[in-house]
Amino acid sequence: MADLKSYINTLNDLKFEDMYQNDFFLTWEKTFDELKATWTVADALRYLRSHNISTKVFDSGLGISLFRDNSTRTRFSFASACNLLGLEVQDLDEGKSQVAHGETVRETANMISFMADVIGIRDDMYIGKGNTYMHEVANSVEQGYQDGILEQRPTLVNLQCDIDHPTQAMADALHCIHEMGGIENLKGKKIAMTWAYSPSYGKPLSVPQGVVGLFTRLGCEVVLAHPEGYEIMPEVEGVAKKNAAESGGSFKRTNSMAEAFKDADIVYPKSWAPFAAMEKRTRLYGEGDTEGIKALEKELLAQNAQHKDWCCTEELMKTTKDGKALYLHCLPADINDVSCRDGEVEASVFDRYRDPLYKEASYKPYIIAAMILLEKFKNPQKVLEELEKRGKNRIFEA
Amino acid sequence: MADLKSYINTLNDLKFEDMYQNDFFLTWEKTFDELKATWTVADALRYLRSHNISTKVFDSGLGISLFRDNSTRTRFSFASACNLLGLEVQDLDEGKSQVAHGETVRETANMISFMADVIGIRDDMYIGKGNTYMHEVANSVEQGYQDGILEQRPTLVNLQCDIDHPTQAMADALHCIHEMGGIENLKGKKIAMTWAYSPSYGKPLSVPQGVVGLFTRLGCEVVLAHPEGYEIMPEVEGVAKKNAAESGGSFKRTNSMAEAFKDADIVYPKSWAPFAAMEKRTRLYGEGDTEGIKALEKELLAQNAQHKDWCCTEELMKTTKDGKALYLHCLPADINDVSCRDGEVEASVFDRYRDPLYKEASYKPYIIAAMILLEKFKNPQKVLEELEKRGKNRIFEA
Amino acid sequence: MADLKSYINTLNDLKFEDMYQNDFFLTWEKTFDELKATWTVADALRYLRSHNISTKVFDSGLGISLFRDNSTRTRFSFASACNLLGLEVQDLDEGKSQVAHGETVRETANMISFMADVIGIRDDMYIGKGNTYMHEVANSVEQGYQDGILEQRPTLVNLQCDIDHPTQAMADALHCIHEMGGIENLKGKKIAMTWAYSPSYGKPLSVPQGVVGLFTRLGCEVVLAHPEGYEIMPEVEGVAKKNAAESGGSFKRTNSMAEAFKDADIVYPKSWAPFAAMEKRTRLYGEGDTEGIKALEKELLAQNAQHKDWCCTEELMKTTKDGKALYLHCLPADINDVSCRDGEVEASVFDRYRDPLYKEASYKPYIIAAMILLEKFKNPQKVLEELEKRGKNRIFEA
Repeated sequence: MADLKSYINTLNDLKFEDMYQNDFFLTWEKTFDELKATWTVADALRYLRSHNISTKVFDSGLGISLFRDNSTRTRFSFASACNLLGLEVQDLDEGKSQVAHGETVRETANMISFMADVIGIRDDMYIGKGNTYMHEVANSVEQGYQDGILEQRPTLVNLQCDIDHPTQAMADALHCIHEMGGIENLKGKKIAMTWAYSPSYGKPLSVPQGVVGLFTRLGCEVVLAHPEGYEIMPEVEGVAKKNAAESGGSFKRTNSMAEAFKDADIVYPKSWAPFAAMEKRTRLYGEGDTEGIKALEKELLAQNAQHKDWCCTEELMKTTKDGKALYLHCLPADINDVSCRDGEVEASVFDRYRDPLYKEASYKPYIIAAMILLEKFKNPQKVLEELEKRGKNRIFEA
Repeated sequence: MADLKSYINTLNDLKFEDMYQNDFFLTWEKTFDELKATWTVADALRYLRSHNISTKVFDSGLGISLFRDNSTRTRFSFASACNLLGLEVQDLDEGKSQVAHGETVRETANMISFMADVIGIRDDMYIGKGNTYMHEVANSVEQGYQDGILEQRPTLVNLQCDIDHPTQAMADALHCIHEMGGIENLKGKKIAMTWAYSPSYGKPLSVPQGVVGLFTRLGCEVVLAHPEGYEIMPEVEGVAKKNAAESGGSFKRTNSMAEAFKDADIVYPKSWAPFAAMEKRTRLYGEGDTEGIKALEKELLAQNAQHKDWCCTEELMKTTKDGKALYLHCLPADINDVSCRDGEVEASVFDRYRDPLYKEASYKPYIIAAMILLEKFKNPQKVLEELEKRGKNRIFEA
Repeated sequence: MADLKSYINTLNDLKFEDMYQNDFFLTWEKTFDELKATWTVADALRYLRSHNISTKVFDSGLGISLFRDNSTRTRFSFASACNLLGLEVQDLDEGKSQVAHGETVRETANMISFMADVIGIRDDMYIGKGNTYMHEVANSVEQGYQDGILEQRPTLVNLQCDIDHPTQAMADALHCIHEMGGIENLKGKKIAMTWAYSPSYGKPLSVPQGVVGLFTRLGCEVVLAHPEGYEIMPEVEGVAKKNAAESGGSFKRTNSMAEAFKDADIVYPKSWAPFAAMEKRTRLYGEGDTEGIKALEKELLAQNAQHKDWCCTEELMKTTKDGKALYLHCLPADINDVSCRDGEVEASVFDRYRDPLYKEASYKPYIIAAMILLEKFKNPQKVLEELEKRGKNRIFEA
């Protein structure tokens, strides 16, 4: 762990002023400097907290969370991040139903934001809707701020949409940066983002999309592997290709898990639903076609069941670089004979990586807090410096 | 915006010491000085927050909220107000069912109040019950405090009852005060509190009652307009008459929306249920008569549908003073061709007033916070002065 | 009320360093010094708060609550305790269903604990499960802390399990200590922990078990009275016997309420379900045997109804020491002709003791806060001393 000065020095060399008063939607809408600033601030906040220095930069203020779906872990990550900075979380519980758009969104967004500094939204269930909805909310409060309704501009953090899962991918990457001993060490590393079998269906695409969209920025050799029919959004593949070309990495797609694992430095085997099926599901929900949804579910489970061999086994792990690729997962994983009979990963593999997996997850609250800090403060270097100087203990020291 | 000193000077000329350690039930139970103190403190808190000065006056303590009904906006207003002052909100979720009275209320009120500084209640669904229940709660904790059970006296804020909606009406009035350039400028202004058509039924009476009960204090010419059969509580009409006589304003009732709008300076077109129907509904709920409730619903919707012409149209707006009366609404409004086919207001009217409407709503958290401050602090002038002197930033300034 | 110095002096004479970084499961797993430290810190925190001195020792940090069952009062007690110390409560709502064990518990416990300082669990519904589950959670986060996943070790507070209800029993005892004028005055006092009739069934055993397990530590003459068939867990009876032998008190069981009340200094009449029935119920739930559960319910209610004479009447109260034994209850009580026709206590008895009963309950938030403080701080004496020296007002004083 570096000291605070070194984090501040890193920040001094980066250009990220556009993050101020801005939102965080997709990693590929951010410059690489902005991503580096996010990782650096996350590390700096962790440094301060682990040295028992309070990082409360708000003395009152709300962090609003809006989840379309039950979500214990993301909820706690967001709550932890807000709490770390001094914001109190208020949940806006709208249920799973798609909320109305237009007028209603504009009004509700303003009505709940009079004292809101940040809004965190998770809306990943419907293709073509989640990210759009987030923009509607962000535009609404931006307008409210411009019109003098809101005294502050609540900025938005995308806690998972239909396109990207930026807080997850950024936490995954920070974990790899630490495991590999620095961001530059990720250059040329092979990462296998592969589909894996799960006895459930309809898992969001945002994790694989977020990973290929981000790791291609880092100069990695990114391989996306999945059975035929499990394509991700074509736009995101396009993003990955473009990223790879710019970063000096590569992006490849294969239908062979074995090929992806071969000599990989990092593996990320995880189930997801086919993009086309998710689109169909969105349409069926829109039409209120319950029978159609049930039929689609059945069909998808049957389709999944044809690919039970897509499992992260010990055998496959042996084929990775020195037989010890870093195993990643956003958790919870479907573990063979633990959470289900056949799943994404063999129990012994999962067991061996449990500690790193938990560590991986532990970065998320700090990533979210870093996004908030960069959105709300013009000069985060000075904020960090002054926090250390102030030296207020997080836990009272007598 | 004045400076803090001027707000303090205003407070120095007012008599409001009875608010200390007291509750806020109905605006007409408060002296005019007390209402002015509330508006002034609300403005002062807004002044401090907009100058990035923290107004946390509690270093730990709970604000308890109790809602009979789902209520995103009021919930956020109360949460914002508590947060602004340093109180953490704890929801007491009792569901929509009428809670037991007597012993149970007394006990529960005390059990949750050991560390509560304020209790906010919204209970507007049942005629003759909401306000009564609030008094039961307030009496219970007052008794608990007198008996040495509670170390502090949790004071109550009425977040909407069957009789009044004081935080709404007070916010509405503060909005008008700012729009008109001062409280004295409301004298002689004509305000039309009128019924409007809505395709839903059973909207509470507390908004129109709160408005006629409060604006008659301000020397306004208050006109209450509604179709026959949509009478409000007779007691509140009595209050309005008495208020008008004392303030030099007037209170009139009419069955013509046009007459009410004619030359009005302020219009407040809004649907509500007839008092007699609400009474009947309360009785049916008490008897658990589900069939009767359904029949009543149907009947009320049919009755409403006879008055679709009660809509705030552009045409009607043209008849107001200079064609530009200030349009008020507690939100959400039923907007023609937006939230429903036929509703309370034409879309173009609503659109033109969106910003002022949002601004109107923005006063509510400050009104609630002001009520709390006046209930909990003997010398709010000194508190405000010391807060400014302390000068702790709400958002860390590095 | 003593001054802070005297509480600190008391603490200086006690040995309780093992509480630091440890959990609080059962009172009989704690030394007597540790229990005394808990009561003393509770009193000291109350002293500080009642002198308007803030006891916020955390400047950010989460207190996680996990309730298997709806629980307004315990929820508020835990929230109050956390708030008092500066922790923000986050509820982990898992519903009433038994959560999975093993892997899932380990993972979830770590995932929610990245910024958690304390975890409060109430899980009293299933015999042989609640306490076990708490240990699983505590072991999981202990492991996470040892492995460097968690930066702090979240400590656990048992908010009620199948075996003990330590926060209740400790609050009950602190109430008695104050009523009797000191802990030494409880020596030799007769306390009747007796079953009482209630028209509901399945009330947890943890209250009577907690009481006989704790008051036998205090040198009391503890009498456990219940109809035949309403036995508590045999292990806990064993604990009570052993405790009594060590403390110089006694533990006796009888099937006569009259015998228990005779000359008692303290009476605690309260309904509970027979241990054997609770075991059966746990098994039926495990088997998902809905019909069996319904049948058992009916059977238990019928069994209860045979013992309507087990009621705390005025007549019985007259037989206690000088006719004025201290009446205890964890609340809410089943009061004759108030909450039900026939219940645990006559209304006039309950009325006479209402204030002391509420006072009894008021200790719980302080007991929980004391447990947290002792778990999180190595030198609580110094913490208390410095808090007084810091002298930050809980309520702003201008």
